[in-house]
Amino acid sequence: MDTKVIAEVSVLPLGTGGTSMSSYVTACVKVLEKYSDIRFQVTPMGTVLEGNLDRVLAAVEAMHEVPFGMGVKRVVTDLKIDDRRDRVITMESKVEAVARKRK
Amino acid sequence: MDTKVIAEVSVLPLGTGGTSMSSYVTACVKVLEKYSDIRFQVTPMGTVLEGNLDRVLAAVEAMHEVPFGMGVKRVVTDLKIDDRRDRVITMESKVEAVARKRK
Amino acid sequence: MDTKVIAEVSVLPLGTGGTSMSSYVTACVKVLEKYSDIRFQVTPMGTVLEGNLDRVLAAVEAMHEVPFGMGVKRVVTDLKIDDRRDRVITMESKVEAVARKRK
Amino acid sequence: MDTKVIAEVSVLPLGTGGTSMSSYVTACVKVLEKYSDIRFQVTPMGTVLEGNLDRVLAAVEAMHEVPFGMGVKRVVTDLKIDDRRDRVITMESKVEAVARKRK
Repeated sequence: MDTKVIAEVSVLPLGTGGTSMSSYVTACVKVLEKYSDIRFQVTPMGTVLEGNLDRVLAAVEAMHEVPFGMGVKRVVTDLKIDDRRDRVITMESKVEAVARKRK
Repeated sequence: MDTKVIAEVSVLPLGTGGTSMSSYVTACVKVLEKYSDIRFQVTPMGTVLEGNLDRVLAAVEAMHEVPFGMGVKRVVTDLKIDDRRDRVITMESKVEAVARKRK
Repeated sequence: MDTKVIAEVSVLPLGTGGTSMSSYVTACVKVLEKYSDIRFQVTPMGTVLEGNLDRVLAAVEAMHEVPFGMGVKRVVTDLKIDDRRDRVITMESKVEAVARKRK
Repeated sequence: MDTKVIAEVSVLPLGTGGTSMSSYVTACVKVLEKYSDIRFQVTPMGTVLEGNLDRVLAAVEAMHEVPFGMGVKRVVTDLKIDDRRDRVITMESKVEAVARKRK
């Protein structure tokens, strides 16, 4: 079975001197365009990724590096991985399962 | 200024004997219907909430309680709160700020 | 049964213009001295709390407020709650259970 | 400069049919004994790691895999990485900085 994980990552630059984070988030998300085997979705609190675990971790490492390239000296990255191996889950199937049951 | 927070919550029941979580998630989300002053959005990895901090915390406490009412004996709840007080942010404005800059 | 939760909180001030966080962490931890019914422990990545859920949430809300009082305009707070109701757990019992099995 | 990260990981097996997690946590922690370049510390809410980012991510991936080898079908892993590159931080220095200021 092709077991993809669903993950959510949030990369927070510290000590930036400003409260806006969207330039950093945008640059982190742009890195994902190089990972054609990873599907992603920007949410209000992070970026959701879907792909093989190895690739997701590589993408997260690349995203985590981005603010340092923009002059930031400290970054706190949060990652949550949901890995289900008894059936295939996707970003959409997880949301739809709840939507269906809410009716 | 009306300072609403954006938050993301994930309520995980442990020891349920099954891998599907959508019934628990659905029941947790249903609790939010009683909180008419909280806007929310179900994502693949959690539920995003927008509202006053006090009310968001009350809603999270109510969501956290749900699986116990369904027979679960251990629950791990994750909460992340983004509280910006120099300008109003919404669930939509955060995502749009990134979408705009990605173009 | 007296069901206390174990929780971990991390309060991150954004846009502070400096990389050191320890003054903010210290001020957040000091707030806990007013919560005599909450036991706590500072770890390298957060503060672990033990107490009744209501009180833990009140303490977290107070901690979250601290950096705003120090001039910060945006705060991201992370909270994880472990709530087990079939037996009493403490900060120590959780660590000891692992230490015992590692031998 | 030798830039080590401090991270905290929590590996949660879902659907195990029991509320005790310490056997899984213990097995995950045992994996770390193979990573001699990673220092670690078990806390009430997770395992704190200190080491190079690449190695920490490899260790987290190995820990995440452990419950699957014990028959679990779904695992949710949480990781938080604190990466400061303007000075060396250690697990101890972070806690001591707060302890010193609390006096």
